[in-house]
Amino acid sequence: MKRIDWNQLDEPTRAAVLQRPVQAVSNTVRAGVQAVFEAVAERGDDALRDFTARFDGVALEDFEVGADEFARAADAVPADVQAAIAEAAARIEAFHRAGIASPYAVETAPGLTCQRVQRPIRRVGLYVPAGSAPLPSTALMLCVPARLAGCAEVVLCTPPRADGSADPAVLLAARQAPGVRVFKLGGAQAIAAMALGTASVPRCDKLFGPGNAWVDEAKRQAAQRPGGIAIDMPAGPSEVLVIADSGANAAFVAADLLSQAEHGPDSQVLLLTDSDLLLEAVAAEVEAQLTTLPRAAIARRALESSRLVRVRDIEQAIAISNAYAPEHLILAVREPRAWLDRIDSAGSIFLGDWTPEALGDYCSGSNHVLPTGGAARAWSGLSVASFQKAITVQEASRTGIANAGPCAAILAHAEGLQAHARAVELRLEQAA
Amino acid sequence: MKRIDWNQLDEPTRAAVLQRPVQAVSNTVRAGVQAVFEAVAERGDDALRDFTARFDGVALEDFEVGADEFARAADAVPADVQAAIAEAAARIEAFHRAGIASPYAVETAPGLTCQRVQRPIRRVGLYVPAGSAPLPSTALMLCVPARLAGCAEVVLCTPPRADGSADPAVLLAARQAPGVRVFKLGGAQAIAAMALGTASVPRCDKLFGPGNAWVDEAKRQAAQRPGGIAIDMPAGPSEVLVIADSGANAAFVAADLLSQAEHGPDSQVLLLTDSDLLLEAVAAEVEAQLTTLPRAAIARRALESSRLVRVRDIEQAIAISNAYAPEHLILAVREPRAWLDRIDSAGSIFLGDWTPEALGDYCSGSNHVLPTGGAARAWSGLSVASFQKAITVQEASRTGIANAGPCAAILAHAEGLQAHARAVELRLEQAA
Ligand SMILES: [Zn+2]
Ligand SMILES: [Zn+2]
Repeated sequence: MKRIDWNQLDEPTRAAVLQRPVQAVSNTVRAGVQAVFEAVAERGDDALRDFTARFDGVALEDFEVGADEFARAADAVPADVQAAIAEAAARIEAFHRAGIASPYAVETAPGLTCQRVQRPIRRVGLYVPAGSAPLPSTALMLCVPARLAGCAEVVLCTPPRADGSADPAVLLAARQAPGVRVFKLGGAQAIAAMALGTASVPRCDKLFGPGNAWVDEAKRQAAQRPGGIAIDMPAGPSEVLVIADSGANAAFVAADLLSQAEHGPDSQVLLLTDSDLLLEAVAAEVEAQLTTLPRAAIARRALESSRLVRVRDIEQAIAISNAYAPEHLILAVREPRAWLDRIDSAGSIFLGDWTPEALGDYCSGSNHVLPTGGAARAWSGLSVASFQKAITVQEASRTGIANAGPCAAILAHAEGLQAHARAVELRLEQAA
Repeated sequence: MKRIDWNQLDEPTRAAVLQRPVQAVSNTVRAGVQAVFEAVAERGDDALRDFTARFDGVALEDFEVGADEFARAADAVPADVQAAIAEAAARIEAFHRAGIASPYAVETAPGLTCQRVQRPIRRVGLYVPAGSAPLPSTALMLCVPARLAGCAEVVLCTPPRADGSADPAVLLAARQAPGVRVFKLGGAQAIAAMALGTASVPRCDKLFGPGNAWVDEAKRQAAQRPGGIAIDMPAGPSEVLVIADSGANAAFVAADLLSQAEHGPDSQVLLLTDSDLLLEAVAAEVEAQLTTLPRAAIARRALESSRLVRVRDIEQAIAISNAYAPEHLILAVREPRAWLDRIDSAGSIFLGDWTPEALGDYCSGSNHVLPTGGAARAWSGLSVASFQKAITVQEASRTGIANAGPCAAILAHAEGLQAHARAVELRLEQAA
């Protein structure tokens, strides 16, 4: 792994170290996704069948998972995994439920009340990738908050397996949203189906979930279409930044770096430490642990672009982290909570030696769908609010319009909007 | 104005009535915006000077409003407008402040705490269009919540006037965000400057504010770039849907329809009523009020595509409104609050006869930057949260990892992510 001494670098080199590889969408992907949207718009389910045959190698007549397949899923998943899914769901629910926004009201003038209420997004479309392995945890991270939000229709797409079935662990996890409709569809065609609607797949109001470059581009194209489809956030390669001091456990830190690196060859991994000893110990541990790692080939490729960075002190490390805005930030330092107020951009933070990033991926209770690629500067991870929208409400009595109306009329005249002024003034005349 | 009896229509015709004109972005606009981004990326402020000369007809050396121009603004704005700006700002602040999310924490297992904290988005870029008139109200709707969120850097772009100055009322309103930096830049070049950064304009993390088709397309292209720039929401023509019963005041309803219609020729205006008498009275009032309206030409064009719709009852009107998801919804009915729980999609709701939409545009306290074009199905209007991001935090003790770790390890193995399992298991061994 590449070592860097931050304080030996000039500013342009520092910027280059924090620069993520530009994830420019290739013209192939962009044009391919456009073609998928056009085909699904024109030929609906027939187009979905063609794409599923071509990309997933499966001939499917119906995409939707029926009651039988749901019932069989329970038998196919080992009991300990079933229990773990239930346990994780309970913890995710506990944390997400406590974050649900409350409606509120304020009397902003005598006789004038403003309030804000929340409403579930009616139809949400969730994407659960299969990737190198099924991801029931992603189904949990999407279905639990969708249920808590009260979404009336929950649609979930996940790629079919070679035999045409859906992964049973994903189905069990999906059941966290009762009434969920699961469709065996993957890639851009799944997103196009949920964005456009077909005879079998409902058109959705907002699309959620991670995916590869094709899925991400399809979500972006969906969001570009007229009609205001929303998406959860831009998706990119997963990232971890670890800040460790001399007291950190090198084996733990190495394991955390590797668990990020195994996500994919383009995963971003950074260690910042003020201790040369720890830096070298982590480097050695990474090598040692790699020898017994099944996904070592993937992890090695990710580690090629990773960095072990020597910094002056933890304060400097925090400043670098804020500039980078990592998806996951691990604070393997002695007083982690003392630094919390100093962190201004990160998707999710893991405090201390005993909180691996893997805990947040599965079952600490926080959501693992998080902003990547620097998006943590402006975006938040998923919460129940992501599955709702807020509506503001105002109500004036005669007294209310008498109190607030003149201000509105003056500003309407100042902006040259006489009809606005008149809508107020007509009422002011009659309220008097 | 076109009359329609909803219950005489078949389903396809009903759908057509609720269909907004497709706001497809022309290739001219798309390519033009791309060219602006390329020029600003390559030539920075020089490109901004060229575009400002070409599109705004002004030769500007410096874009930023200096202390002198700010000082002169106070003299240029009439005292009643200054007072109205201050009054509106106070009411906007009162409502927005009460909606600020609180941090919270949950112990999701013994020894394992999850929490959520809010952080201001560091650099926000606000766009205040000039349009046919300056819009100090939009500056208020952006600057007040940016201040309440605690944003460290607030950048505001607004088109220069013919003499190269900024509108003084917009400058006064912008002062609601102390330390705001105002640049006299309009259109796509303003958005490109805030998205890319130039020698004079800071690169921003999130872009806010309404604008014409060029500004909207520029915001969309900014959001497509790597680096995770966020935008507030897609922008489109403004809309109002009024639901009125036989007890409504026809003059008030007509004034509300006209105040929406004067926003622009593409504004959307719908009236739903269960009363033939009211419908005809409103139609007559609209004609009468139009005769004395300065912006009658604009309003008439908007009214060409507007509809007066006779419905069976208020319940049916609510169902139609939910399907349409209007930006503004006025409930000019006798018991408006009784219907509130039934409304599931709208940007902002105005209850009763005494609450014109104009009040929300200026000074009820709610935000007037709202989702249009059906986006209210999935998007919310601006709030302080729009200027912040949430970060989740988790901390496990040895006890915490002992309690929650096994669940994470089982799921990691089920997903084939052995390094994730190991990061947990290494700690479980040592925690024991
Ligand atoms: Zn992970
Ligand atoms: Zn208006």
